[in-house]
Amino acid sequence: MENHDHTFNKEVLPLRIKIDHIDSQILCLLAQRQAQVEKVVKLKKEHHVPVYHPAREEDLISKLRLQAGKANLDPDFMEDLYRVILRQSRVKQTGQMEQKAVKPGARILIIGGAGQMGRFFASLFQKSGYEVRILTRKDWTTAGQLCKDIDLALISVPIDKTYDAIEQIAPFLEPATILADLTSIKAGPLAKMLKSHPGPVTGLHPIFGPTSGSLDKQIIVVTPGRDRDHSRWLLEQLTLWGAVIVESSAEEHDEIMEIVQALRHFATFGFGQFLYEKHARLDRTLEFSSPIYRLELGMVGRLFAQDSSLYSEIIFATRERRQLLKDFISSLNAHLEMLEKNDKKLFNEKFNRIAKWFGSFSEQAMRESTFLINKLIERF
Amino acid sequence: MENHDHTFNKEVLPLRIKIDHIDSQILCLLAQRQAQVEKVVKLKKEHHVPVYHPAREEDLISKLRLQAGKANLDPDFMEDLYRVILRQSRVKQTGQMEQKAVKPGARILIIGGAGQMGRFFASLFQKSGYEVRILTRKDWTTAGQLCKDIDLALISVPIDKTYDAIEQIAPFLEPATILADLTSIKAGPLAKMLKSHPGPVTGLHPIFGPTSGSLDKQIIVVTPGRDRDHSRWLLEQLTLWGAVIVESSAEEHDEIMEIVQALRHFATFGFGQFLYEKHARLDRTLEFSSPIYRLELGMVGRLFAQDSSLYSEIIFATRERRQLLKDFISSLNAHLEMLEKNDKKLFNEKFNRIAKWFGSFSEQAMRESTFLINKLIERF
Repeated sequence: MENHDHTFNKEVLPLRIKIDHIDSQILCLLAQRQAQVEKVVKLKKEHHVPVYHPAREEDLISKLRLQAGKANLDPDFMEDLYRVILRQSRVKQTGQMEQKAVKPGARILIIGGAGQMGRFFASLFQKSGYEVRILTRKDWTTAGQLCKDIDLALISVPIDKTYDAIEQIAPFLEPATILADLTSIKAGPLAKMLKSHPGPVTGLHPIFGPTSGSLDKQIIVVTPGRDRDHSRWLLEQLTLWGAVIVESSAEEHDEIMEIVQALRHFATFGFGQFLYEKHARLDRTLEFSSPIYRLELGMVGRLFAQDSSLYSEIIFATRERRQLLKDFISSLNAHLEMLEKNDKKLFNEKFNRIAKWFGSFSEQAMRESTFLINKLIERF
Repeated sequence: MENHDHTFNKEVLPLRIKIDHIDSQILCLLAQRQAQVEKVVKLKKEHHVPVYHPAREEDLISKLRLQAGKANLDPDFMEDLYRVILRQSRVKQTGQMEQKAVKPGARILIIGGAGQMGRFFASLFQKSGYEVRILTRKDWTTAGQLCKDIDLALISVPIDKTYDAIEQIAPFLEPATILADLTSIKAGPLAKMLKSHPGPVTGLHPIFGPTSGSLDKQIIVVTPGRDRDHSRWLLEQLTLWGAVIVESSAEEHDEIMEIVQALRHFATFGFGQFLYEKHARLDRTLEFSSPIYRLELGMVGRLFAQDSSLYSEIIFATRERRQLLKDFISSLNAHLEMLEKNDKKLFNEKFNRIAKWFGSFSEQAMRESTFLINKLIERF
């Protein structure tokens, strides 16, 4: 093999130079594309048109898939590529659109505005030209002044401080001020807000961490309280920033979050605890791993890269949640006998019952995760 | 807003036409690029050079990142884009390179060649011009004939049939024939192969499902048995097909797989069982979900989209594994009191101890999973 290498290197060089040249031209076209997109953004801003235009994107993708087929390129590859390009274009547009205020000059007070989530929303409102005021723990003496003429009081404090914060701020609010919160449980805080403040009330739960950096396609659950019309501008603003609004009752929200947040985080925590107890050798396990294991272990690692109080608050938020987690442990205990007796047959029966219940979701999950696994292989 | 729409549509049209034109030019350049890559593949084939050239790829990415910066494009965006392009180029190359045999004309017998994994390897060997023979359950009467002059006997049967298959095939093998297996446990089968066959022996464990379609960057663990030199061509062949070979002792392999496969699959199974018991409303939970939940639920759904016996075999493979899973359940039971007592403080203590143990892995996991979450947002 060795003696071939020299000839190969000599022969491959001109081809690589050509490829590099093509890559430079592609790069140049991408820069031109970006310049055109910036002109579109300018127009959208002038005409108050939202950034995300799903129909235009899908149309563009379909056209490119067709063209790709004709040019002997794989249409899936072309789609993958343009999903990257369109996202970049969207992020850039959203970044520039953030300037636009739905209710220009409105005054926002963020209670707990020094925390991560509070700072994130403060920065969004500020960039759009709102007047943003921050109330931290030590500002309660000047609360009256801070609340003067505000359009929105937004509670962004840890779960266990939410009720106190609502109770303390409510007396200072004018009747037309919107009172809203960002707590990850909704029934309790919403009831408390409705009781404490006679004006417009809205519950919000942004389903993402403050580290995500943008609202682009992020989900915010809205649990309406009172005077929806009054809060409409707020929801429009969130949408304009790129968020996807999902409406729900506070009760439904909480029930779903027991599963989506509490159970999931607790299960991940329990898995991490066991790896720790067993002194599992993480580095070596990764060398042996399929991308999907890498992904799953990554999900566990991700949890422990964050602040413990974030999770303890979610897990211990209500008695119902703690009960659910105890039920989860009981459910696992029910498998002990199957393991003792080496009862593969029972496992298969249980498995197939669950599979049937999952139904078509499984296939969708298979498709989506396969897509991600390929991305993972691509990258690492 | 409505009355603006008409003007906006009129003004945006020429910009969109320009963007479409730029996209066509990009597509045209990608087709040219592909043509050049095909020439490189041809050269690589002639000179027996492997497809994947990490140094060249990283070099290309670095250069493009630099150029992007100068052209006012985001370097991360450029890198994302070229990871997609380079993967496509690699898959295409691997597809074409598959033809190349390291030991042309060698004869391969696949025991269990009618199963998914067996068929996958049969097809790889066939495409590369090897003579492939298949032995299924009903072919044992002609085993002697099938084993004549073979260079490799590859066992690809379910775990619980592995020992019998080794015992049955060994007497028919010539002393120079390589005996290898694809079982996902290694210590037992390797010992059995060494005992039953005096010639070259190699344990293999492909850490991926047969549905992945390609060996590109897939991991295969090799647990050497006897006469390594004799099996070298086989490992070279796997590498040429794109696989990454990781060497290990059979004991280390089994210990790591207890965690990587058995524990992980069991934990996922237990989670699915509980969702089923609680009749969780999957569709609605997805509407409320951050991409990371979608990803995690996807991992659960993915399990139940596959064959239960695949998992029961992995989970119930050895007594050690079943003990590990019982230990896992005990470990979870130890959290019950913490939940009863609503002991957030204890949770935080446990959490921080685990976080410390995870160490720098957590940050890496955070980075990797954030990358994937962005991909997920991009796509869905």
